[in-house]
Amino acid sequence: MVQQKQRVAIIGSGNWGSAIATIAGYNTMRHKEVFEPIVNMYVYEEIINGEKLTDIINREHVNTKYLPHARLPDNVVAVPKAEEAARDATLLVFVLPHQFILNVCKSLKDAIAPGAHAISMIKGVDVANHQISIYADVIEKSLGIPCAALSGANIANEVAQGLFSETTIGYRASQRDLVDYYKKLFDTPKFRVGAIEDVSGVSLCGALKNVVAVGAGFVDGLEWGGNAKAAIMRIGLMEMRNFALEFFEGVKPETFTETSAGVADLITTCYGGRNRKCAEAFVRTRKPFHVLEAELLNGQKLQGTETTKDVIEFLESHGKVDEYPLFKTIYDICYNGLDPQQLTERL
Amino acid sequence: MVQQKQRVAIIGSGNWGSAIATIAGYNTMRHKEVFEPIVNMYVYEEIINGEKLTDIINREHVNTKYLPHARLPDNVVAVPKAEEAARDATLLVFVLPHQFILNVCKSLKDAIAPGAHAISMIKGVDVANHQISIYADVIEKSLGIPCAALSGANIANEVAQGLFSETTIGYRASQRDLVDYYKKLFDTPKFRVGAIEDVSGVSLCGALKNVVAVGAGFVDGLEWGGNAKAAIMRIGLMEMRNFALEFFEGVKPETFTETSAGVADLITTCYGGRNRKCAEAFVRTRKPFHVLEAELLNGQKLQGTETTKDVIEFLESHGKVDEYPLFKTIYDICYNGLDPQQLTERL
Repeated sequence: MVQQKQRVAIIGSGNWGSAIATIAGYNTMRHKEVFEPIVNMYVYEEIINGEKLTDIINREHVNTKYLPHARLPDNVVAVPKAEEAARDATLLVFVLPHQFILNVCKSLKDAIAPGAHAISMIKGVDVANHQISIYADVIEKSLGIPCAALSGANIANEVAQGLFSETTIGYRASQRDLVDYYKKLFDTPKFRVGAIEDVSGVSLCGALKNVVAVGAGFVDGLEWGGNAKAAIMRIGLMEMRNFALEFFEGVKPETFTETSAGVADLITTCYGGRNRKCAEAFVRTRKPFHVLEAELLNGQKLQGTETTKDVIEFLESHGKVDEYPLFKTIYDICYNGLDPQQLTERL
Repeated sequence: MVQQKQRVAIIGSGNWGSAIATIAGYNTMRHKEVFEPIVNMYVYEEIINGEKLTDIINREHVNTKYLPHARLPDNVVAVPKAEEAARDATLLVFVLPHQFILNVCKSLKDAIAPGAHAISMIKGVDVANHQISIYADVIEKSLGIPCAALSGANIANEVAQGLFSETTIGYRASQRDLVDYYKKLFDTPKFRVGAIEDVSGVSLCGALKNVVAVGAGFVDGLEWGGNAKAAIMRIGLMEMRNFALEFFEGVKPETFTETSAGVADLITTCYGGRNRKCAEAFVRTRKPFHVLEAELLNGQKLQGTETTKDVIEFLESHGKVDEYPLFKTIYDICYNGLDPQQLTERL
């Protein structure tokens, strides 16, 4: 039984990190019997109009750069060094771009408290040497502490505005006693938290939905209508689930078909996200994706095409690509000049 | 084993009936070893500019009233009497408004061939005397022949244009040997037919999705964004499935979460359909639904509000309404003056 009060640190402070900090700050105050009141938030230091971003945040309680329209609770404290933000923390929330994870984890190793544990909100998968890994596993291995995952139909600006959302926590068997902390940290009347013992499934939903969203965007560009788009989403959801079941241990099919991380986030992403938008523009303009990314995304990165490439290269190295005809078709349209009109030919 | 050639009759010729007749006409010609070449289509006679609709259809091979932009194959023959259309038919396709079913079935009783069987494309459920029935069961009882169901993400005009769709056939154990006929009658490269042994689940998907679409329309009217809409759809899908499992025999959960009839049709309906549209307008204008129906639907009927009422009255008579908080909230907003802002309070 873990009985000490939890000291929370949020590692990351972008758009989503800041939105989740508004909730975590509020809930740590609401549940004082469970949490230490101060929530440190690691902020990569930047100079904004001659002033440090951490100073702005700590004075104005607004992340003026990444979430300018939401107020952070006063107990959220911006800290410019990760190891200081995480000093003596027992509950680490990882919500930073995946390329920084390994270096940040290294710097945290000696700072975190004994018995610390983590939850990751990092999307994407790490593919290297014919291996595919979710970032919760990367963190778990790097720090030697258990790491859960949180994912769902969670457009950051809507969450920060207090509009209704659901989300899903995927946890490990070793974290069963900790789930109640995660729920207390994140659940509010407008941000409903579900939980399922499936860290891999929840993480893979967040990565693979972006592949399907590229396909959904192609349908929009082709002007094939609502039937075809729903069909691509359904087939995509089945390939997502099958991929997870085939290559990861302990995956539950219902994570994909029943949770906010699964079907709900897929819907939001296929109707509203940046991957859908760029894929639609790709069909209409035939400009390359890197050009569309620069033109349409205002500095944000396109995840769907990159994840598609990672997934297909992984499948090819395992001789399994033919079992994922939609993923492969999306890849061939993105990278091999296949005509988008061929989208459904192999299904 | 059924080895005679199948004689197909389509009972109904509205927008969806005419769209499905384009496919059935094409496929009966393509599979001559299985089907008699002529497909009779029962057309409720109307006079259009002084001429009978059946005469127009049989001369121009276009249903100028209900599907003016699609050509019917020459082997589809419009017949103004249901019993003549169904004379000696072995495979009956029911696709007419539900209020006409019982009378039409009575007229068919002596016309159909021995060993005949049916498939229903009729949406909705029949509620009377605390009982709830799918129309495939109504037809089965009335005619004493097995009746399957077909439902999916199938906007009729898109199907008639040859745009890509999927659909789902739900069949009975007694129809296992017949499924191949249904697939041959409907499957094309652009209209992909799946099949599952679950006639109740497939039928209920087609009815209950309209309840959820009313809730999705409320979210649009409230301008709560993509997270909230996906959440309502996810919760709605779970209530649909739970309702089917609780009150019908032989329902498979995956009919709801994995098929075109389930999750895919829900998506299409919550983003494009008339129930969504009127519900959005209801929130924005506070006009009653019957007024919005008249203003926005151009003579079509709103199914979602009626099905919501049927379902809630049924649940109340069984003391089970508290298990379906989303359905009940949608009902209270439609009929009891509940403020749409309360949509998520009971979830």
